[in-house]
Amino acid sequence: FLASHFTIQAQDPLPSWNDGPAKQAILKFVETTTTQGSPDFVPPEDRIATFDNDGTLWVEQPLYTQLTFALDRVKALAPEHPEWKEEQPYKAIIDGDLKELIAGGKHALAAIIATTHAGMTSSDFEKITTDWITTAKHPRFHQLYTDCVYVPQLELLTYLREKGFKTFIVSGGGIEFMRPWTQRVYGIAPPQVVGSSIVTEFQMKDGMPVLMRLPKLNFVDDKAGKPVGIGQHIGQRPILAFGNSSGDKEMLQYATGGDGARLGLLVYHNDPEREYAYGPAGGLPDSKIGTFPQDLMDEAKQNGWIVVGMKNDWKRIFSFDE
Amino acid sequence: FLASHFTIQAQDPLPSWNDGPAKQAILKFVETTTTQGSPDFVPPEDRIATFDNDGTLWVEQPLYTQLTFALDRVKALAPEHPEWKEEQPYKAIIDGDLKELIAGGKHALAAIIATTHAGMTSSDFEKITTDWITTAKHPRFHQLYTDCVYVPQLELLTYLREKGFKTFIVSGGGIEFMRPWTQRVYGIAPPQVVGSSIVTEFQMKDGMPVLMRLPKLNFVDDKAGKPVGIGQHIGQRPILAFGNSSGDKEMLQYATGGDGARLGLLVYHNDPEREYAYGPAGGLPDSKIGTFPQDLMDEAKQNGWIVVGMKNDWKRIFSFDE
Ligand SMILES: [Ca+2]
Ligand SMILES: [Ca+2]
Repeated sequence: FLASHFTIQAQDPLPSWNDGPAKQAILKFVETTTTQGSPDFVPPEDRIATFDNDGTLWVEQPLYTQLTFALDRVKALAPEHPEWKEEQPYKAIIDGDLKELIAGGKHALAAIIATTHAGMTSSDFEKITTDWITTAKHPRFHQLYTDCVYVPQLELLTYLREKGFKTFIVSGGGIEFMRPWTQRVYGIAPPQVVGSSIVTEFQMKDGMPVLMRLPKLNFVDDKAGKPVGIGQHIGQRPILAFGNSSGDKEMLQYATGGDGARLGLLVYHNDPEREYAYGPAGGLPDSKIGTFPQDLMDEAKQNGWIVVGMKNDWKRIFSFDE
Repeated sequence: FLASHFTIQAQDPLPSWNDGPAKQAILKFVETTTTQGSPDFVPPEDRIATFDNDGTLWVEQPLYTQLTFALDRVKALAPEHPEWKEEQPYKAIIDGDLKELIAGGKHALAAIIATTHAGMTSSDFEKITTDWITTAKHPRFHQLYTDCVYVPQLELLTYLREKGFKTFIVSGGGIEFMRPWTQRVYGIAPPQVVGSSIVTEFQMKDGMPVLMRLPKLNFVDDKAGKPVGIGQHIGQRPILAFGNSSGDKEMLQYATGGDGARLGLLVYHNDPEREYAYGPAGGLPDSKIGTFPQDLMDEAKQNGWIVVGMKNDWKRIFSFDE
């Protein structure tokens, strides 16, 4: 039994993927780009693969994890700020009034970020993030957020690295919110995480050199910002890019717009039983979070990007699925 | 003979370094941080080493290489710009009037950068840079600039990587000026290069997705900018940092200001015969390029940073030295 199990594992690097066009496209792409003598062979130093995070590697519904973190932080800090009981957007958060919070728009979001993500050193923020991410649980799955990651994608990351690829995260989320745990969860080291950021400043604090986080936006790694972030951090055009929403369109255009073999992929959340279903592409419910509009679906068809339907393409989604 | 030669090589990872306090400090630091069970042991994922480039890994006199590149580009483009014969700073460059050029100050520099480093795609700039760097020669050594790199430092980079360190460049120079050749010359891949940058924009050009270089400064990776660049790109505090001028002070403060074993190093150019001599620290001639002031020397002493004197610490400097 052990021997035959081992053989199956060795033969199939993606056991949580159902057989189908998506899995076949991935296997074929990796084979043609990594087999010496293949016309599409890519030398190891150019095997760059970029992955969006929210909705591509882990759950993003019912709320982006980082936003849940920020709201939890406001609640945790509230006792030190009695004035928040009368002040928006804090009042809305304390009252659990999401409608009022959303009405606050960009101004509310900037205030929340300034309050919860700035005014401390990078290493203090790392401690705060680590404390939260190792205890907070997803409201539906009742598991740590870092366990709400997609097993098929973990297999894909491992498979790509075994084949000489460098794997990067390129997320609209905060770069310093992700870095404390990406090595442990995805096998992706901090320097290979690209994301949005606020301004940091080098300071001497009590005689110790620190990076202080300032309440000022530095870079938004979303939409047309994703190729720019890739240019800044990686300096090479990826040959594979994986996303799940309109925020990834430009990254996929950039990655698949180069010479030679290229692969663009999109997760399509069409599995309300095991995860969530949202689009609005293909008639699924619309969502402000991780929007996958019909024109992205059309562009995927036109460009040969692979749409990975959770329901049909993934045999297993989470490690806690039985 | 082969056997004994092999033994010597295996025993000395830094054959171009003279025996002395600098070499001993490096060997001891690497041993204590990489030996399992040592009180100063650092796990491989935290072994981050950052190196300045100009004057630390390659020659920076009589002029920063990138500035020579920019001046050469102006001269190459001059035939298409007859108006430059009457327009500063171009006239000064065409006339070879360095004094007049320097008088133009920051304004002149910004104009040169806009003309020579912007207005093309990242991949076009890569071609221009590669063409130049593979043909242009140093005025004194008559060798390619990429051969004017310090052999002791190449040995150190290799040694650190063999011991599980990740090696990064953290340079005030342009990130995209370095990336096309750092893998070949230093064994440092593009994502592990941190540097100054101009703004890039994602554009569709003739239906192809490109990153366009705009004539606008994005980030200056010098002085207090170096720890900030390290925070953005690496997201980890280095345990070893190597520089050569006042532009590296904050990087060394940041690297050596953390817990556990730390090593800060500075190249001191005191070898006019084999390379150059400039300070003004220690009474050497002053230089606007790669300034090593006395207060940096004093701070090095105070913080236990190792000052590596080229003349005494390096047995061999260039591969073309006999
Ligand atoms: Ca996403
Ligand atoms: Ca330097």
